[in-house]
Amino acid sequence: MQLLDGKLVSQKTKDELKKQTEALILDGKRPPHLAAVLVGNNGASETYVANKVKSCKEVGFESTLLRLDEQTTETDLIALVKKLNEDKNIDGILVQLPLPKQIDEFNIINTISPEKDVDGFHPVNTGKMLLADDRAFLPATPFGIMLLLEHYNITTRGKRVVVVGRSNIVGRPISILMSQQRNFGDATVTLCHSKTTNLQEITCQADILISAIGNPDIIGADMVKDGAVVIDVGIVRVKDDSAKLGYKIKGDVKFDEVALKSSYITPVPGGVGPMTIAALMMNTMKAYKQTFAK
Amino acid sequence: MQLLDGKLVSQKTKDELKKQTEALILDGKRPPHLAAVLVGNNGASETYVANKVKSCKEVGFESTLLRLDEQTTETDLIALVKKLNEDKNIDGILVQLPLPKQIDEFNIINTISPEKDVDGFHPVNTGKMLLADDRAFLPATPFGIMLLLEHYNITTRGKRVVVVGRSNIVGRPISILMSQQRNFGDATVTLCHSKTTNLQEITCQADILISAIGNPDIIGADMVKDGAVVIDVGIVRVKDDSAKLGYKIKGDVKFDEVALKSSYITPVPGGVGPMTIAALMMNTMKAYKQTFAK
Repeated sequence: MQLLDGKLVSQKTKDELKKQTEALILDGKRPPHLAAVLVGNNGASETYVANKVKSCKEVGFESTLLRLDEQTTETDLIALVKKLNEDKNIDGILVQLPLPKQIDEFNIINTISPEKDVDGFHPVNTGKMLLADDRAFLPATPFGIMLLLEHYNITTRGKRVVVVGRSNIVGRPISILMSQQRNFGDATVTLCHSKTTNLQEITCQADILISAIGNPDIIGADMVKDGAVVIDVGIVRVKDDSAKLGYKIKGDVKFDEVALKSSYITPVPGGVGPMTIAALMMNTMKAYKQTFAK
Repeated sequence: MQLLDGKLVSQKTKDELKKQTEALILDGKRPPHLAAVLVGNNGASETYVANKVKSCKEVGFESTLLRLDEQTTETDLIALVKKLNEDKNIDGILVQLPLPKQIDEFNIINTISPEKDVDGFHPVNTGKMLLADDRAFLPATPFGIMLLLEHYNITTRGKRVVVVGRSNIVGRPISILMSQQRNFGDATVTLCHSKTTNLQEITCQADILISAIGNPDIIGADMVKDGAVVIDVGIVRVKDDSAKLGYKIKGDVKFDEVALKSSYITPVPGGVGPMTIAALMMNTMKAYKQTFAK
């Protein structure tokens, strides 16, 4: 069993981006700039956004964190996003999800300029991804998984891939990317979800199993084929009084028992999580370059 | 075995649309209007476009057929599409594919206004489809298949669906639609393609098998599970001197032998083909209604 070390690969990706940024500065240009919008005080969201801002610093990007009150109206958030769309010094805009109930996430995502939509959630970007248009911003988590597969040179062509979970931000796009004609694609992909009736039978056929449910410990050794590659996208905080923070981060996969059967496996934390942030940094650099290429 | 009779269901769909159009006219409104653009003299394209124009007449829509020379430049075609985009009397624009080599299909599709893109090929529409946005125009063939499943009330929830062929206009979108949370969706879908190594093993697991390869007779009885629903999207003209036109229309499926094993099966011709046109008419009516709802 070999660990798919997201921390390591994320660091490598960020080191590479840092070099690119330094070269831009030497060239007299401004660095890429990410604007992150955080509405309210969700604990997990606070951590995610803080990590994103920290990563910007690490790679030499500028970042602006805009904090809005829990009671912010949709109208006000839309107005802010429009202002960011028009700001020529900002390349990427990220509105941390989930948003408070009074705000329709779909309306916010649709307001972000597709050219600055570094999360890759805008229909124009999902459409381009679907059509394998290179200019698309891939959603950060699936993109991060692709970078991880690439780093470890995992063969995907002709392999059976089973994705569990059909969310628009992870399960659906990774199922598409891995079945497209591309490097680290060309796999035969099955997408499973809450209505799948024979989940174990299907997951046991997977050469590469990607679980993106967010249900701790749902994937046990009995659901995994010998020698499979196992990628765990689940990140859930589970109360644990023995832990320093009062909780532990748990994935979908029972790591200890599945690790014994798998050829490669991502840990949680330290697997897909850091890759998501590295991918976001990649997208921000891409947004910057595409703007200046115009 | 029961036939999934695309001719019948298409007629029913068109009858319903005709009633709607008549109601519009009685209400003093103009009917929906589809503009079809045909470049060059591809025989199959001629037939398809002629059928679409004929269907417009049947349902009471206006239609305009614009014929352009095989040598038409991309610039000229783009200029024409832009004119059609701006024409308030035109609701739907269809540029028949394939286009001659000197024209980049992607550039043309991207020029069509998403609001008039009744083929559902523009990234904005594919993106909306992916996000299950009801306002999306679904690509006509997958939409036609969904209408057929609906008419025969085929259970899809929790079923294993295998789609063979990953084109952006059929295989990919039908694999997405059938795995989404929706009526006649919620299936567990596997998308197979040219790089799939164990095709027969996978197709034999399918409760519903959808073949969209365009390779005559490639799906034999040995690739189909007993009682499966079989949907054949293949439409290829095969030279046949005994036939009146000098060719026969062939599907992907060996109909005679597969029919004996299947619970439901589409014939070719008379299955998915007519449904595609009915779906295009539905999209044109939708474009009309969405324009006037603004």
